[in-house]
Amino acid sequence: MENCIFCKIINREMPSDIIYENEQVIAFKDIHPKAEVHVLIVPKKHRANLNEIDDNEKELLAAIFLAAKQIAQQLNLGAQGYKLVLNVGRGAGQVIDHLHLHLLSGTYNRPLNEI
Amino acid sequence: MENCIFCKIINREMPSDIIYENEQVIAFKDIHPKAEVHVLIVPKKHRANLNEIDDNEKELLAAIFLAAKQIAQQLNLGAQGYKLVLNVGRGAGQVIDHLHLHLLSGTYNRPLNEI
Repeated sequence: MENCIFCKIINREMPSDIIYENEQVIAFKDIHPKAEVHVLIVPKKHRANLNEIDDNEKELLAAIFLAAKQIAQQLNLGAQGYKLVLNVGRGAGQVIDHLHLHLLSGTYNRPLNEI
Repeated sequence: MENCIFCKIINREMPSDIIYENEQVIAFKDIHPKAEVHVLIVPKKHRANLNEIDDNEKELLAAIFLAAKQIAQQLNLGAQGYKLVLNVGRGAGQVIDHLHLHLLSGTYNRPLNEI
């Protein structure tokens, strides 16, 4: 998708701190972290948000959350735990129209409402 | 699972305000709502949290989030949007050890960090 910042990251047209990747999903550090650990998990297929995910895309949807679980293990978050936040729509704080799951852990430096 | 409050709700051994149900998932209003709209979406199979979901349970995992999308439509949240929050582990604010996805929308009466 032209002019989509996350598509550019996926296509290596923009730099980012990628910490995980598989066939369906990529994950990188948020450039404005709201917590000690703040990772964005993004499907490689451009979907604006959850409302655009069809019933026949269960595999893709599950891949996003299984990646989150994998990343949490990779970052040793077992003991401290982690929050996953998915904003759907501008009114809920979604700023970039490419589905992204926030993985957050540790101390927060902003209220989660603003994430 | 004995003594699990969400299993009791699923089995109708405890009352709750159920707003959605299908074969895999049930959803009911949080009894202590932290926002105007605060719904809990729960898989009928007892799983403590996301870390207990296996790679062969993609169908179940996807069902939770597709249910969230359905419920948002049912509640007409299209314009105002909604947030989905999944806490994994005590340190991240998970209080009940049966996986539950928070669906939140409208005005919050508590910081999301405490949800």
